Amino acid sequence: MKIVIDAMGGDNAPEEIIKGAIMAVNEFGVDIILVGDEVKIKSEVEKYQIKDKNKVTIVHASEIITNDESPTMAIRRKKHSSMVVGLKMLKEGYADAFISAGSTGALLAGGLFIVGRIDGIDRPCLAPIIPGEKGNFMLLDAGANAECKPRNILQFAIMGDVYSKKVLGKQNPKVGLVNIGVEEEKGTEFVKQSYALLKQSELNFIGNIEPRDIPKGECDIVLADGFVGNVILKLYEGVAQTIFDVLKREIYSSFLNKLGGFLLKPVFKKFKTDFDYTEYGGAILLGVKNVLIKAHGSSNAKAIKNAVKQAVNCINGNVVEIISQEIKNMNILE
Amino acid sequence: MKIVIDAMGGDNAPEEIIKGAIMAVNEFGVDIILVGDEVKIKSEVEKYQIKDKNKVTIVHASEIITNDESPTMAIRRKKHSSMVVGLKMLKEGYADAFISAGSTGALLAGGLFIVGRIDGIDRPCLAPIIPGEKGNFMLLDAGANAECKPRNILQFAIMGDVYSKKVLGKQNPKVGLVNIGVEEEKGTEFVKQSYALLKQSELNFIGNIEPRDIPKGECDIVLADGFVGNVILKLYEGVAQTIFDVLKREIYSSFLNKLGGFLLKPVFKKFKTDFDYTEYGGAILLGVKNVLIKAHGSSNAKAIKNAVKQAVNCINGNVVEIISQEIKNMNILE
Repeated sequence: MKIVIDAMGGDNAPEEIIKGAIMAVNEFGVDIILVGDEVKIKSEVEKYQIKDKNKVTIVHASEIITNDESPTMAIRRKKHSSMVVGLKMLKEGYADAFISAGSTGALLAGGLFIVGRIDGIDRPCLAPIIPGEKGNFMLLDAGANAECKPRNILQFAIMGDVYSKKVLGKQNPKVGLVNIGVEEEKGTEFVKQSYALLKQSELNFIGNIEPRDIPKGECDIVLADGFVGNVILKLYEGVAQTIFDVLKREIYSSFLNKLGGFLLKPVFKKFKTDFDYTEYGGAILLGVKNVLIKAHGSSNAKAIKNAVKQAVNCINGNVVEIISQEIKNMNILE
Repeated sequence: MKIVIDAMGGDNAPEEIIKGAIMAVNEFGVDIILVGDEVKIKSEVEKYQIKDKNKVTIVHASEIITNDESPTMAIRRKKHSSMVVGLKMLKEGYADAFISAGSTGALLAGGLFIVGRIDGIDRPCLAPIIPGEKGNFMLLDAGANAECKPRNILQFAIMGDVYSKKVLGKQNPKVGLVNIGVEEEKGTEFVKQSYALLKQSELNFIGNIEPRDIPKGECDIVLADGFVGNVILKLYEGVAQTIFDVLKREIYSSFLNKLGGFLLKPVFKKFKTDFDYTEYGGAILLGVKNVLIKAHGSSNAKAIKNAVKQAVNCINGNVVEIISQEIKNMNILE
């Protein structure tokens, strides 16, 4: 099993990316291909003990795609970027999965133009795993398609169902549709039509889910168009971050507060672990012909290591193949 | 100044509603008209000391509109409901503002069909005040219109601007448009067209705001269509609630944690006060011909008291009249 990693993408590249990649090699025994500036990668790799050096390959790529450039243009023009080189290796069968903490837009464009969609899938979607109170859940689409059709939502749900079963080991994942009320007749035309399609499907569709209930984690697959999904993803992070920033500032404001904060350290730590996105790897791009994982832009080594684990689980679970089959069955039924 | 209050609406009606109304009479010296079941209201009112009993009037209404019925049907058919009776008194000039913690949908329908829109306003919007890290902000539309046009967004912004200046006392409120990226070209067609309209306006438009940054409270007026706005409102509440539930559970899990929790009590308390929605009254329905306030469904007495204060400020600030004038000017300019 070979996994290509974009060594140059993300806020902490290449240091943390390479560190995480090597942790994965040592822990999971996978083969890793690091793509990017050869000199920089080599000097980082040499810092670590590697159990089996044969498992690490470096492939040179002279360019980097940044977050500031047009994703589609960048994918088309920067043929020597770590992202394009890595995706081409995947496409051509030199690897089984690709991971990048770089530009989300570029990864989406590369997924479409270089790797290609699964037959029958109209739109791939971005699906991060998000920690909730009673368990993690998948959010689809978290931002690949700002505008969607009801048919896309149904396909997202089918893909999320396969992933939840095969990678997250959930038996009969609950599927919920984000809406501004639980009643069937609530929301926009788009949401109502999506509801009708989901209701007819064989999925374990539990109906509408109100945004207030999303953090409870009672629903395994949370569906929304890419605009709403992205709002949910970012607001979730923002509210949690703000609460902890404010608490932290207050805790440091007096001696007694500091003492209280010290005593509660295990609580905050447990909380941080339970709600730590780095535990879950990255967001998978579902609907393309290979395993593509978008790690968080601020990924540290642990997040990258867990993204590799996620990729391994996707490959072992035959996620792409099963999705292809499910979509074929769905289209035959239509 | 006379304010009608729906004594029967909300999870804690009529007890907390009436308690809050009387607190408002005693503190602010306003005249209050309590609408609902006369017998129940009387027996509640008698529990309290009222400085000037002349300031409390009870108007009987035999029906109640619940959250489970169709709002439009309920408003049309339940002529004797506390909501319809109250709104009619407002419409006919017997009062200056109306407050209800009951069905949001019914209040919106009643606002449209009984009170009526301000000339030139296509769609009224629901605008709660939400606490953020650096200050509170207004969210429009928080759920009145699941589907909007760019023109509606511009009108919401103008109404929010008037309210922020006249009621919240903000000099030059910053207006931000919720989008999945800060760049002008991001998002759906609807968001891009709304951006263009806002950019041409005389508002202090600061561009797109990413959901991650909303809780920081750096933007005074946060604009979105009613679907996205409602998602933001409910997720904001849900994430904060979940974090505090989890922290609370952990704090009670061991003696040292409890001690730490005890020492941090002032921190949690300050946090609760800073982020307490009951401090801000309710969500105003902007764009109708009178002051209409939707208090939170779970409002306690304090929330109702503050909603009365908010109504007083709206009346004193001539919010409805100034909005009418601004919209007239806008339409003349077109």
